Amino acid sequence: MAYELFYWTGIQGRGEFVRLAFEEAGADYVDMAREAGDRVIFQVLKDARTPSFAPPILRDGEVIIGQTALILHYLGAPLGLVPNDEHLRLWTHQIQLTVTDFVAEIHDVHHPIGVGSYYENQKPEARRRAREFRADRVPRFLDWFERILAGNPQSSEHLVGDGLTYVDLSLFQLVDGLTYAFPRLMHAKRNDLPHVMAVWEAVRGRPRIAAYLASDRRIPFNEYGIFRHYPELDA
Amino acid sequence: MAYELFYWTGIQGRGEFVRLAFEEAGADYVDMAREAGDRVIFQVLKDARTPSFAPPILRDGEVIIGQTALILHYLGAPLGLVPNDEHLRLWTHQIQLTVTDFVAEIHDVHHPIGVGSYYENQKPEARRRAREFRADRVPRFLDWFERILAGNPQSSEHLVGDGLTYVDLSLFQLVDGLTYAFPRLMHAKRNDLPHVMAVWEAVRGRPRIAAYLASDRRIPFNEYGIFRHYPELDA
Repeated sequence: MAYELFYWTGIQGRGEFVRLAFEEAGADYVDMAREAGDRVIFQVLKDARTPSFAPPILRDGEVIIGQTALILHYLGAPLGLVPNDEHLRLWTHQIQLTVTDFVAEIHDVHHPIGVGSYYENQKPEARRRAREFRADRVPRFLDWFERILAGNPQSSEHLVGDGLTYVDLSLFQLVDGLTYAFPRLMHAKRNDLPHVMAVWEAVRGRPRIAAYLASDRRIPFNEYGIFRHYPELDA
Repeated sequence: MAYELFYWTGIQGRGEFVRLAFEEAGADYVDMAREAGDRVIFQVLKDARTPSFAPPILRDGEVIIGQTALILHYLGAPLGLVPNDEHLRLWTHQIQLTVTDFVAEIHDVHHPIGVGSYYENQKPEARRRAREFRADRVPRFLDWFERILAGNPQSSEHLVGDGLTYVDLSLFQLVDGLTYAFPRLMHAKRNDLPHVMAVWEAVRGRPRIAAYLASDRRIPFNEYGIFRHYPELDA
């Protein structure tokens, strides 16, 4: 039976981290809201015995799971996107949880006052927050990924072990999104991040990912999602 | 061998969620920085083959793990603070990940512009963010916990299954911290949250937790941690 993913239509958002794992694995999945509208999300939020706080939500038969990083932890083994070693699986999950933290900060740059108000109503605050984000937070997170890659005893081409895992796909998505949203900042940073940039290149060159990115299943970046290109927030 | 916890001295912070689990279980643990100073945290961040992005960090022999929710997921079974059922363990972890999201929002109320600048330098922005936080975010999160408790088929006194888990301890900590930081808001909300408030009461009445809270191991809430009492941000 196909995996069912529930995530808002119209944006890549947090659902994209799950989509990339499905696409790389060639898994059978249905992007439910794109088939039947966002109302199916409210339905699954309401009906579940384990009601998630927010999408993305995965339904796998009787199992309903929320939280992006937990969905990937759950899918890792069946999709062949984690090592067999139990401690490396925890480490993979730990890295993904830090991706989650970074994603929240990337989102909050354009919404420092709250999600309930438009960007246009919090532009001065966003400009102020963006200064620290560019100067300190982006380097701090990306340098951490660079350090993990450089220090991986099995392969400096992968974050964990000697093969592709779902966190490599997530790192691709982070760099891809940041390059869309903050092109000047990323241009200035890229020479400091040789291993990170190599993962970005390698992942987007993988046949299934390349086919996905070229398909209409890949929603283009836009100014409704996490990664928004507002030139006034870039370097 | 004792578990070793690495977390900043002087604040409860995210480390407190782990401390509560250790204390309830009567586990043998050492709060490393309180013994030897914050420098041991930098040491473990530097030396680890799996370098965490930030504390809290747990060292259990050769295993070093970061991310609060993952530490609790790892400790759950050995400390007897999760059910045996694998899907309920994932559900427990999922709830804890939502605690993590809520904690980040609670922190950012007093730091909407960034962690690198003092509260005093972002007071107008904090007041603005606090309005949405009080009106929408706190109710949304706490009502979600209330709904989970009310809907738990095994026990409405616990979030998961029919016994105490680490997320009940974390819910206690959330309510305890919010009551310190936002006493007026919580006073107004408490009648809408009978099950949540009952967990708070029940947890703080447990013998080991009560003894811990009365000890000098429990760092008092203060204006350096996550939960800060700034009357101008309260209702």
